[in-house]
Amino acid sequence: MKKIAVFIGSRANYSSIKSVLIEINRHPNLELKIILGASAVLDKYGSLDKIIKKDGFKIYKKIFFLIEGETPLTMAKSTGIGLVEMSSVLDSLKPDVFLTIGDRFETVAGVLAAAYMNIPVAHTMGGEVSGTIDESIRHAITKFAHIHFPASSDAALRIKKLGENKKNIFLVGCPRIDLVKNVLRNTSFNNIIHELKKNGVGSIIDFNKDFLLLSQHPVTTEYSNSEQVIKKTLNAINRINIQTIVLWPNPDAGSALLSKGIRKFRENNINIKMRFYKNFSPEAYIHLMNKTKCLIGNSSSGIREGAFIGTPVVNIGTRQQGRRVATNILSCNNNENNIYNAIKFQILKNKYKKSYIYGKGEAGKKIANILSNIKVNIQKKITY
Amino acid sequence: MKKIAVFIGSRANYSSIKSVLIEINRHPNLELKIILGASAVLDKYGSLDKIIKKDGFKIYKKIFFLIEGETPLTMAKSTGIGLVEMSSVLDSLKPDVFLTIGDRFETVAGVLAAAYMNIPVAHTMGGEVSGTIDESIRHAITKFAHIHFPASSDAALRIKKLGENKKNIFLVGCPRIDLVKNVLRNTSFNNIIHELKKNGVGSIIDFNKDFLLLSQHPVTTEYSNSEQVIKKTLNAINRINIQTIVLWPNPDAGSALLSKGIRKFRENNINIKMRFYKNFSPEAYIHLMNKTKCLIGNSSSGIREGAFIGTPVVNIGTRQQGRRVATNILSCNNNENNIYNAIKFQILKNKYKKSYIYGKGEAGKKIANILSNIKVNIQKKITY
Amino acid sequence: MKKIAVFIGSRANYSSIKSVLIEINRHPNLELKIILGASAVLDKYGSLDKIIKKDGFKIYKKIFFLIEGETPLTMAKSTGIGLVEMSSVLDSLKPDVFLTIGDRFETVAGVLAAAYMNIPVAHTMGGEVSGTIDESIRHAITKFAHIHFPASSDAALRIKKLGENKKNIFLVGCPRIDLVKNVLRNTSFNNIIHELKKNGVGSIIDFNKDFLLLSQHPVTTEYSNSEQVIKKTLNAINRINIQTIVLWPNPDAGSALLSKGIRKFRENNINIKMRFYKNFSPEAYIHLMNKTKCLIGNSSSGIREGAFIGTPVVNIGTRQQGRRVATNILSCNNNENNIYNAIKFQILKNKYKKSYIYGKGEAGKKIANILSNIKVNIQKKITY
Amino acid sequence: MKKIAVFIGSRANYSSIKSVLIEINRHPNLELKIILGASAVLDKYGSLDKIIKKDGFKIYKKIFFLIEGETPLTMAKSTGIGLVEMSSVLDSLKPDVFLTIGDRFETVAGVLAAAYMNIPVAHTMGGEVSGTIDESIRHAITKFAHIHFPASSDAALRIKKLGENKKNIFLVGCPRIDLVKNVLRNTSFNNIIHELKKNGVGSIIDFNKDFLLLSQHPVTTEYSNSEQVIKKTLNAINRINIQTIVLWPNPDAGSALLSKGIRKFRENNINIKMRFYKNFSPEAYIHLMNKTKCLIGNSSSGIREGAFIGTPVVNIGTRQQGRRVATNILSCNNNENNIYNAIKFQILKNKYKKSYIYGKGEAGKKIANILSNIKVNIQKKITY
Repeated sequence: MKKIAVFIGSRANYSSIKSVLIEINRHPNLELKIILGASAVLDKYGSLDKIIKKDGFKIYKKIFFLIEGETPLTMAKSTGIGLVEMSSVLDSLKPDVFLTIGDRFETVAGVLAAAYMNIPVAHTMGGEVSGTIDESIRHAITKFAHIHFPASSDAALRIKKLGENKKNIFLVGCPRIDLVKNVLRNTSFNNIIHELKKNGVGSIIDFNKDFLLLSQHPVTTEYSNSEQVIKKTLNAINRINIQTIVLWPNPDAGSALLSKGIRKFRENNINIKMRFYKNFSPEAYIHLMNKTKCLIGNSSSGIREGAFIGTPVVNIGTRQQGRRVATNILSCNNNENNIYNAIKFQILKNKYKKSYIYGKGEAGKKIANILSNIKVNIQKKITY
Repeated sequence: MKKIAVFIGSRANYSSIKSVLIEINRHPNLELKIILGASAVLDKYGSLDKIIKKDGFKIYKKIFFLIEGETPLTMAKSTGIGLVEMSSVLDSLKPDVFLTIGDRFETVAGVLAAAYMNIPVAHTMGGEVSGTIDESIRHAITKFAHIHFPASSDAALRIKKLGENKKNIFLVGCPRIDLVKNVLRNTSFNNIIHELKKNGVGSIIDFNKDFLLLSQHPVTTEYSNSEQVIKKTLNAINRINIQTIVLWPNPDAGSALLSKGIRKFRENNINIKMRFYKNFSPEAYIHLMNKTKCLIGNSSSGIREGAFIGTPVVNIGTRQQGRRVATNILSCNNNENNIYNAIKFQILKNKYKKSYIYGKGEAGKKIANILSNIKVNIQKKITY
Repeated sequence: MKKIAVFIGSRANYSSIKSVLIEINRHPNLELKIILGASAVLDKYGSLDKIIKKDGFKIYKKIFFLIEGETPLTMAKSTGIGLVEMSSVLDSLKPDVFLTIGDRFETVAGVLAAAYMNIPVAHTMGGEVSGTIDESIRHAITKFAHIHFPASSDAALRIKKLGENKKNIFLVGCPRIDLVKNVLRNTSFNNIIHELKKNGVGSIIDFNKDFLLLSQHPVTTEYSNSEQVIKKTLNAINRINIQTIVLWPNPDAGSALLSKGIRKFRENNINIKMRFYKNFSPEAYIHLMNKTKCLIGNSSSGIREGAFIGTPVVNIGTRQQGRRVATNILSCNNNENNIYNAIKFQILKNKYKKSYIYGKGEAGKKIANILSNIKVNIQKKITY
Repeated sequence: MKKIAVFIGSRANYSSIKSVLIEINRHPNLELKIILGASAVLDKYGSLDKIIKKDGFKIYKKIFFLIEGETPLTMAKSTGIGLVEMSSVLDSLKPDVFLTIGDRFETVAGVLAAAYMNIPVAHTMGGEVSGTIDESIRHAITKFAHIHFPASSDAALRIKKLGENKKNIFLVGCPRIDLVKNVLRNTSFNNIIHELKKNGVGSIIDFNKDFLLLSQHPVTTEYSNSEQVIKKTLNAINRINIQTIVLWPNPDAGSALLSKGIRKFRENNINIKMRFYKNFSPEAYIHLMNKTKCLIGNSSSGIREGAFIGTPVVNIGTRQQGRRVATNILSCNNNENNIYNAIKFQILKNKYKKSYIYGKGEAGKKIANILSNIKVNIQKKITY
């Protein structure tokens, strides 16, 4: 039996790995050990631990290490405390592989702990290109990781160019697509509507009519402008005048300012038709992406899930700069008119055609099988 | 005036950056801010702060963050605490550039703090290839760094291949060579002998006769064997039967075991002609490398300074695996007979011819000039 | 010149020490160094740093050390990180005295740092008796402190009984009273009304009519019940049916649940006449205490400022258990009917007569003078 | 079954609690959970974990939190990290009681973690009086502790005077005495001599002849003088000219300087008849105390075990100031002549008469029984 430790640091992380967790749990040779940390343990971002347990998983350990403040300084400090905590957890657990996801700041904590402690590191969603500090973090994690599970062919190629051994690079597709495929196949939007009506605050949304979906996060390298940045998007949506579902931002540096921008807009536009959610179940979010006239903001979901679903997306600013996109993406900068025009364009479209650049929905199974078979050399060496 | 923060985490770091510090201090547009941490603040590794002050530099801040234990676990934890401490220091200092050196585990702490806090990171000695966790650390730092100062042409090329913008890669040579050049030009071995006789414990060395020099450090990925590993080297030297100068290892994970191996050997071989030093002044060490019949172990000094000086070197094991070497290096594995034969071969040679693969001794001046002129984009982006 | 470092960890701390800061700043032999930390640096609790600067003080250093979570576990961890951060700050600052306030959990961090580093600790508000973990914290701080500034005669006596040298115990009164005296003398309620109307959310309050004031905080040793506890108070107020001003709780363990209880009540009682504030200026709060028909909850302000002002107070539960109270206090347990009856009783009263048990408003001046003159023996010794 | 977590932070801690561990382990209603930390996990102070396992105990968790440096600054920081680590351990373990020992700086970490997390704290060796920061620490711990196990009647009385509820104060005697009684009854000095000869460095001691025993630790509040302080003691012993067994100091702030003083003395006095030990088994130390002509230094063992054994002791300086002593103690200040004269006086004495001021050797059994029966109110309240 191989012990696979999986670090989950946010709700988004959970959606990005859920199908893998299912397959590890099912696999006869693998033992799943979930470590929850960062915003994933905080009630204010939704009680993810309860959702995870409800989904049938056990949680090995919850660790608290986010320093309050939501600035670049506290992002750095939180990562430091995370490293102190993760190393203790890994020292007790002694996993055979440490599996981690993507490129958020706290992800580095677990990767450093494992790599320094001679535990093989497996990494999903490496090799992609984006803006913000995530761009540096992602490639640095690749340089610490022993096993790579890129989600797209361009990402796989980039990992190879970064000097990683191609024997350890596995193009498996994005595990988020597994979830999308499963949800659209096995559940219906009608079952979700009740949940959506019960939660959230603000206007009442008529889900039988057209609606927009907004999911915009702060960009760490521009974070002091977050309040102004979101204001432009909200003004543009206001002019479009279609009922809109708004998702609150992630707890990155800058989210406090961005949230403030949303709150202010709401107070000054009492009659606007918007409903605000702290988070959704993955099922609800997938159905919303499937039904919305347009997803607006800078969430990576537009690019990944959006490609597979065919959601029309207006992608704003630099946050996803460089990621591989399908035709469903219309990108624009932080200018109110440009945003307005882009939304206008996308809502005239209906759904786009499915694209498989982020896989066909079998990533979880592939990853579990590879983990059960692979043997890695703990001593890494650049290939050139 | 640009504020240049320089993090120094060990005596070796200081030797690797001293010529740069001198040039930054001299430069009219640069303000030098030295941050001392990790083993550089510990009396037991020699009072580096006093040496630095004696050399005419001011120390901006000393930080203590090494957790006792010298295991992979405490290496990880120390880095976490280092990140907490470094972020506070950088928050107060607000430097224009954060300059860091090489690839030791604690180096990551400063790099993460700076990168997360949107402070441009400059890095010396990137792009090289070696064994141990340092291999991963070095390339990960490259992925966080904005300005690169590689020491050799192969390293520069590797940094470019890692997807870094060639505009920000500057082949300046190794600053350690600056020091070597200066010491051999301006000081004589005779002045050093007094210092060497006064310090250290063990046998009395006759510096007019042939002597060997041993500098062997633990390899983090094999660290539980450190005691056995050093024993083989010591046995081989014992059979060679030439008086030997032994430098205690760095305080890495595993150094406790390696040190124990040395102590045990010493107790069991009372009559061996060895003298033990915790550390040398850089001047003394350079002269020793210039005079020794053979440098034995796995120190990077054999490869860098050794190339420029022409020192015969027996390089043992995997620690320097992949580094570019000149003809002075004879590599062998951890086998007593192999070590013995390699030393035998090298002591029959006299000095090798000077090689300039690590530069000609002008790195410090070049780095200071580049730092004074460069403007970087804080948002990094991989080139492919 | 003596350097006096003052740690401020919350808005409440600031009110409790402001008059002392003014007098230290004025004193020719004292140099004021303010260290802000814990919730005092967080925007979400109001930008205290801006208020402090507006009041004419400089801030020496802001430190971030609260771990998100608001549970006993994160309270402990936050104190640990606080100790790491405080020790670095004190190491740079090297104050002659470290002055700290009261008994909140993070206060211990600064006290330990100073005491361990041989810096004399001065402490205000020691020697009092209360419920929650504060009770243990307060007396433990007394055992680390070198100079004691109790606010009341019973507290001074208790400090003496705890084995402290009476030469270092100074009954100066409570510095909060200095502020009350000054505010009531030099400002009017009318000037405050504008601020009160502009801020807060909820119903519009008519400040010319009777109003209640609610300030209830979680009790750490009962913290999982916080939601139920606040519900009883809110129900009782609801039955009284007088417009009410509600202050959100401190960010202690349990505040998340207590806040949730308030939010739920608000949603279920849309028509209730309540207005909700995250915080007040000290001036506003003092005037509210002076005008309200009754202050309800478990805030220490009812006991201290309330005594001097003569505010009718209903003090609920164990949080203030054991504090010395004047006749203005009516205490009751967490029973809805008892709370209802107690409020009924108090609103029939008008103001109570002024009591000087917490001083007459000259604490700041006394403390500054004592600090400028005192010499302490850093080695403490119990008196029996 | 009640889970009793016991924190052990040093070898001295282990000797102070071993008899209690035995009795908890034996008790049908108690489950022993040992947490090792601070110097107790460091190989360089002897592999305590192996000794503990050999003695038949399981170790629940080892935590590393000592920051290298051995200064007041790192003492404070280490306690902070200790608090971060201990809170995670207690969060996983959820013990019914947290049992802690004495007054070393790191002890505070566990006590704060437990008290903040609403876990009842039991404390041995409280209520005593001494010098250094330990004096403050000990009484502060008393103010956090729920159950008190003082070792002597004066200590019990002092705890009561500190405002603790007498129902929770149990005069059980010192558990170290249990060990002494057991060792002297069941083992002989001859069995120990082999171990003593095999270990240590320096001169060979003839254990059939008179010998002195030196155990001197740094005093935190005077720590920068440690090198000078130990020199005086060593000079005095040198003049006495009896073979001496020297125990290296604890890893407190200042121990680096004190150790340096010993090393220098040794180098300058090659012919001195001294043997140096990093540590002893408890058995060996007890027999040495039983056989020595005089124990010199400032170790608490002279006062506790010394009372029961009747060892002649010269107690130097302020470290034990205020502890209750039996007639075997001769105290003197840090003056070479005074030390010399005091040793002269004591070596003319033979053993003193047994004193029971620290108990008769039944503390372990009493503590285990009390822990199995006691119910405590987690909310503490001072008695006056």
